[in-house]
Amino acid sequence: MPKITTLEEAFIHELSDIYSAEKQLTKALPKMARAASNAQLAAGFTQHLEETQGQIERIDQVVESLGIKLKRIKCLAMEGLVAEGGEIIEEIEKGPVRDAMLIVGAQKVEHYEIASYGSLITVANSLGYTEAAELLKETLAEEKATDEKLSQLALSEVNQEAIAANAAMEPAQ
Amino acid sequence: MPKITTLEEAFIHELSDIYSAEKQLTKALPKMARAASNAQLAAGFTQHLEETQGQIERIDQVVESLGIKLKRIKCLAMEGLVAEGGEIIEEIEKGPVRDAMLIVGAQKVEHYEIASYGSLITVANSLGYTEAAELLKETLAEEKATDEKLSQLALSEVNQEAIAANAAMEPAQ
Repeated sequence: MPKITTLEEAFIHELSDIYSAEKQLTKALPKMARAASNAQLAAGFTQHLEETQGQIERIDQVVESLGIKLKRIKCLAMEGLVAEGGEIIEEIEKGPVRDAMLIVGAQKVEHYEIASYGSLITVANSLGYTEAAELLKETLAEEKATDEKLSQLALSEVNQEAIAANAAMEPAQ
Repeated sequence: MPKITTLEEAFIHELSDIYSAEKQLTKALPKMARAASNAQLAAGFTQHLEETQGQIERIDQVVESLGIKLKRIKCLAMEGLVAEGGEIIEEIEKGPVRDAMLIVGAQKVEHYEIASYGSLITVANSLGYTEAAELLKETLAEEKATDEKLSQLALSEVNQEAIAANAAMEPAQ
């Protein structure tokens, strides 16, 4: 981490971190979509890819509006989260149990972003970056909506499919 | 990751992951408390350490009530989050800017846990683990309250202190 001595620098650091996180996510989401068997889940990952690209553009707008320059850093937390997602795909056969775990992994990603954008908005408000705060709030709302959709899909379909698939595999008593 | 073929195994895997995450956090929180200069923030980290120990006991209760056995795994995401916290402490001098960044780091940790407990509760409900779900809900409520307290502290004190500290350092015009 480069030396940080002001809240403005802390804001730039955090914005650079989430920029890296979103970029990494654009590479992971197509893999997650291919790995999912539930059609709604696969479509959700594909839709979130488009949303993520819009979120990256919004960060570009923030950068432009403030006349700042992002740092080239790699978000290590997202790297770990994406790696865990890769493990899920590798270790669990395609099907509803993998889908259930893909949802868990995706919700952790969403919450990383919710925490990051939430903090960025707080710091932006403290610094009087009103326009930036408004842009970031749009993204935060999208991340929260995605998290909620994932919860609903787990509850309404995927977890039940996972239980049913397992019951079907058990030998008859 | 060990092979997972059922939703029950997915639940155990996820519970083992958060157990590791909480254990790692009990080691990190005393360092974060010492690294903070805002008295309320330092006290908050110390209080959250006690809470975390209670949350670990709650996981033990879940394990006992279900008659399951946790796996010895290391939560890599928490390892990354804790490492990022260490970087903050190393790279930013003690003071309000470091405090502001410690809050950001702590909120990412809280959100990792919020996502994890949220998923565990959903899966527990799907599996009919009613008692486990109730225990995990208590922890989820604590994590959300901690996250909210951190946001309030950033807004009401720490970020303003960080701005003021920086303004004081700037040469008079």
